[in-house]
Amino acid sequence: MTVTTGSIRGSKKIHVGPRKVAMREIHLEPGSGEPPVRVYDTSGPYTDPDARIDIMAGLQQLRRDWIIERGDVEDYDARAIKPEDNGLKGPDRSGGVQPFPNVVQRPLRAKPGANVSQMHYARRGIITPEMEYVAERENLGRARLAEYVRDGQSWGASIPDYVTPEFVRDEVARGRAIIPSNINHPESEPMAIGRNFLVKINANIGNSAVASDVAAEVDKLVWSIRWGADTVMDLSTGRNIHDTREWILRNSPVPIGTVPIYQALEKVGGIAEDLTWDVFRDTLIEQAEQGVDYFTIHAGVRLAYIPMAAKRVTGIVSRGGSIMAKWCLAHHRESFLYEHFDEITEIMKAYDIAYSLGDGLRPGSIADANDEAQFSELYTLGELTHRAWKQDVQVMIEGPGHVPMHKIKENMEKQLQVCGEAPFYTLGPLTTDIAPGYDHITSGIGAAQIGWYGTAMLCYVTPKEHLGLPDRDDVKVGVVTYKLAAHAADLAKGHPAAQVRDDALSRARFEFRWRDQFNLSLDPETAEQYHDQTLPAEGAKSAHFCSMCGPKFCSMKITQEVRDFAAKKNQAADGFLEAGLTGAEVAQASKAAALKGMEEMSRLFKATGSELYMGAGGREHD
Amino acid sequence: MTVTTGSIRGSKKIHVGPRKVAMREIHLEPGSGEPPVRVYDTSGPYTDPDARIDIMAGLQQLRRDWIIERGDVEDYDARAIKPEDNGLKGPDRSGGVQPFPNVVQRPLRAKPGANVSQMHYARRGIITPEMEYVAERENLGRARLAEYVRDGQSWGASIPDYVTPEFVRDEVARGRAIIPSNINHPESEPMAIGRNFLVKINANIGNSAVASDVAAEVDKLVWSIRWGADTVMDLSTGRNIHDTREWILRNSPVPIGTVPIYQALEKVGGIAEDLTWDVFRDTLIEQAEQGVDYFTIHAGVRLAYIPMAAKRVTGIVSRGGSIMAKWCLAHHRESFLYEHFDEITEIMKAYDIAYSLGDGLRPGSIADANDEAQFSELYTLGELTHRAWKQDVQVMIEGPGHVPMHKIKENMEKQLQVCGEAPFYTLGPLTTDIAPGYDHITSGIGAAQIGWYGTAMLCYVTPKEHLGLPDRDDVKVGVVTYKLAAHAADLAKGHPAAQVRDDALSRARFEFRWRDQFNLSLDPETAEQYHDQTLPAEGAKSAHFCSMCGPKFCSMKITQEVRDFAAKKNQAADGFLEAGLTGAEVAQASKAAALKGMEEMSRLFKATGSELYMGAGGREHD
Repeated sequence: MTVTTGSIRGSKKIHVGPRKVAMREIHLEPGSGEPPVRVYDTSGPYTDPDARIDIMAGLQQLRRDWIIERGDVEDYDARAIKPEDNGLKGPDRSGGVQPFPNVVQRPLRAKPGANVSQMHYARRGIITPEMEYVAERENLGRARLAEYVRDGQSWGASIPDYVTPEFVRDEVARGRAIIPSNINHPESEPMAIGRNFLVKINANIGNSAVASDVAAEVDKLVWSIRWGADTVMDLSTGRNIHDTREWILRNSPVPIGTVPIYQALEKVGGIAEDLTWDVFRDTLIEQAEQGVDYFTIHAGVRLAYIPMAAKRVTGIVSRGGSIMAKWCLAHHRESFLYEHFDEITEIMKAYDIAYSLGDGLRPGSIADANDEAQFSELYTLGELTHRAWKQDVQVMIEGPGHVPMHKIKENMEKQLQVCGEAPFYTLGPLTTDIAPGYDHITSGIGAAQIGWYGTAMLCYVTPKEHLGLPDRDDVKVGVVTYKLAAHAADLAKGHPAAQVRDDALSRARFEFRWRDQFNLSLDPETAEQYHDQTLPAEGAKSAHFCSMCGPKFCSMKITQEVRDFAAKKNQAADGFLEAGLTGAEVAQASKAAALKGMEEMSRLFKATGSELYMGAGGREHD
Repeated sequence: MTVTTGSIRGSKKIHVGPRKVAMREIHLEPGSGEPPVRVYDTSGPYTDPDARIDIMAGLQQLRRDWIIERGDVEDYDARAIKPEDNGLKGPDRSGGVQPFPNVVQRPLRAKPGANVSQMHYARRGIITPEMEYVAERENLGRARLAEYVRDGQSWGASIPDYVTPEFVRDEVARGRAIIPSNINHPESEPMAIGRNFLVKINANIGNSAVASDVAAEVDKLVWSIRWGADTVMDLSTGRNIHDTREWILRNSPVPIGTVPIYQALEKVGGIAEDLTWDVFRDTLIEQAEQGVDYFTIHAGVRLAYIPMAAKRVTGIVSRGGSIMAKWCLAHHRESFLYEHFDEITEIMKAYDIAYSLGDGLRPGSIADANDEAQFSELYTLGELTHRAWKQDVQVMIEGPGHVPMHKIKENMEKQLQVCGEAPFYTLGPLTTDIAPGYDHITSGIGAAQIGWYGTAMLCYVTPKEHLGLPDRDDVKVGVVTYKLAAHAADLAKGHPAAQVRDDALSRARFEFRWRDQFNLSLDPETAEQYHDQTLPAEGAKSAHFCSMCGPKFCSMKITQEVRDFAAKKNQAADGFLEAGLTGAEVAQASKAAALKGMEEMSRLFKATGSELYMGAGGREHD
């Protein structure tokens, strides 16, 4: 039973500060004179060669002592597991996944009258270890920045030069950020989702049709966080979901989110109308005790909004939304999610579970974007946000969907206004409907923009969206695509030091430090593999030109020659104009360089032994 | 000797109007009651089963008569081909590509004193057949739209409800659009590049290191236009480029662009300082006679700007730009491109070649975006635009490069202002530097945005950007990515009827017309292949749910049930609230549906015979 381990190439795991915050440090070629680059690390101990990984034991409980020391929790006898928790009609577990060994029999909850939410502490002025961890993590261990010039357009965000624990506390207290951290998930490494922090991404996983090897199930999580998923939603349905969820939580260093209505629906045989508050409530307790960090609750689907959605081109595309819509129609009343919302909140605060208020009426096509149904629900989500905040419970808001570019900003503006700046958690949005098979890109375009406008977390979309179930490669492509979209948003918002990694990679590119380029990229393996498809020879990794242009046409090489020339003349770049007078020297130098380069290039090309399909075309620089 | 042929699946080639404008018509399932969807078609006769393809003969000369009938051209003895035209030291062509049979020995040029540019005709109030062709093509054969509500934010563009030949003439006359159409490339199907027309994309191709099979070279063009490239740039270098270019032009239905300085540099042994105006001028004539439709000319690289670029993180990344920079320094004078610009314009107007004024100083990294060097050059490009317009020569302007999202709009605004609304032709821009291997996406994000802001043509970027040479698959991914970015821009700008295809696909999606979904998508093969990886059974193509959720959780199915219920009650959607009273019927109906669906689903799942990696997770709708 194994999962994917091993350090990400070219980098090593470090632990920074008193809270031992996990980060990744990318080391560059010694000759470069460049310092290591620290990057945000979501991958947990799995990428730490020094860590001992045993999924049977689960991860270390980083937060256990922090939680206990607050003195406001009690343990109690866990709710008894029922066969239907695993989608079974009887107690027989044959063919199911094996139960996690040593399941906690006495989970934690808030003492009577207590509230263990991070928001509650924040509002009482308490800076928790979780907040300290987040501050260190968001700063990537750097000290206050003097050297970097702030740049970017933040659309009204309040991004500080330096994140202090007090800033984190204040953001959580105001509801502008959440730290999803169920007290029964002490294995999680604290992270913040908020407009004034780095943009985060979520990856969805789900159990397989035939789940038997739990390591394979856990590896879906491990694989997602290896490439950068900040949180993971377990959208499993069908059999064995309780046991599978236990395996995932015990081995997850990132917050885990779920949509409890799915499991509740399974318990009533898949018939939406048979759902009841009791079944749902029991499911919330079941998952709360396991340690789920945030729940998607579609409480905004109100009876009066359903007819608005029925008129649409694609109706209701949210599963949870359609389930509740059907329930509402069948019973002709408001959903139990809406009617029992405050009771749900009571449960949330006893475990510090964050709300992810679901957008059950989000548009599923360009035609339905920003319509009456969507915004009506958003207003209700705003109402519910303030109701949850009354009890100091953390909230984020889910958003669309399919939205053309010119309608994206309105979504962000309305959400900020209606939901009091509670973090926005959007899916894409997809900016066109006509590219199935490429919807990680149609949505990446929208995700980068809405992230720039202020969305705090982006839910990934894979190439298989609308078509089928993503495989391992699809998940990686989806995560990396969203990671680059989130980073593009951080750059545009002007997050301090976001550009450090871009600059380091660009310098490596300019100086032909190929390995540094690979190691600084979001996906080093793919970068190197693409490079080697054209120039596999080892020498090519130090060649002072690349396969796209060759030595004669290498613009970077020419620029370097120009610089060297200036240096030789002991002149600043500004001296070029005069320097040009002795241009004959440039000619001589570069003639030699070109000839030498040509020999080297032809040697390398021969080494490939294969024809190059596109030749010198198909690359950006002309 | 063959190239890729055959119709694009699910669609057939049609020819519309008196000018027989080629379009593609996607036919949907008869049962759907949906009309065929007409889409813009760049693929030429290669996707027409009725067309006889013979690359030895070249394509039919659609425009030949139009050009002759204008009575302002003369034929003359072509410039004699020299060995160095093919990068050879001697006349020996062994190992080279075979020459195209029946090369035109007497090319056309304007009669003395005449000007054959489309802009010249436009400014004299003449509507050419090319302009008529473009009008029909941009309208996709539709009549004036009454039924569509215009939507979108065009940022000051002037997009008409309906494109008339007179509108095309006026746009060309004002310099806001170009119709690249060298009189020696009569095989081209006229197309317009302009802010008020559909956003276009360009693909780059280049000759292979070892070119022998000319069909393989021609197929790079055919493959690019099959997936949607509106123009193709031949960026070949090295040997056989003259002959390869001849094969490409004679078989190309789209305008071909080149960067003549590349070939000129080859002729002087790759030593930039040895370039002369005479060598360059001779190269322009050589390519003009072959029929190249637009030339990238880096005349904006002025001596005084070079020191600004040398200070950058990535210096000069444009090949043409670096070549000219080196020449300027070596000779300490303004480039021959700048000094002889008006003479170049004389040549352009004699063949109707459009300028693509190159941005030799574009930023090659986030750090260098929007800097002094870049914008200084842009101002010079503005000056040159107006100089070219004095002689009625068509102009477009090349743009960046690497630009973070918050700095993209400034590029568009400055270009519109400085270059008098001449069409902008941008590369990406890439919105971050940290994702080599995914730069089709980092740039697709920027491309969609700048296309929305007003860029007329987007130069594609492939996944191999910065790393290696794209293969056939990379080219397809690059083209499709840019096609979806351009379409997202058309939607956001509010092009009339741009949303027709999105709506048709979304209706197909909602009604589970899988084949229609595939056929309406930009890449039907990939869409179907992804679908079949999860549910290969034929029945799955008509299954009324998809693999992501299964029948119990299928939101679209539930919405449909809700609608059917309303219909049964003979009520409008608005009647749902009352209808809800008899919700028991919904319950009954859906209970049966769910059970039936479950059986069907399990049968289909069994049919796959394989475990589904990600299970029900990893898809957008919760």
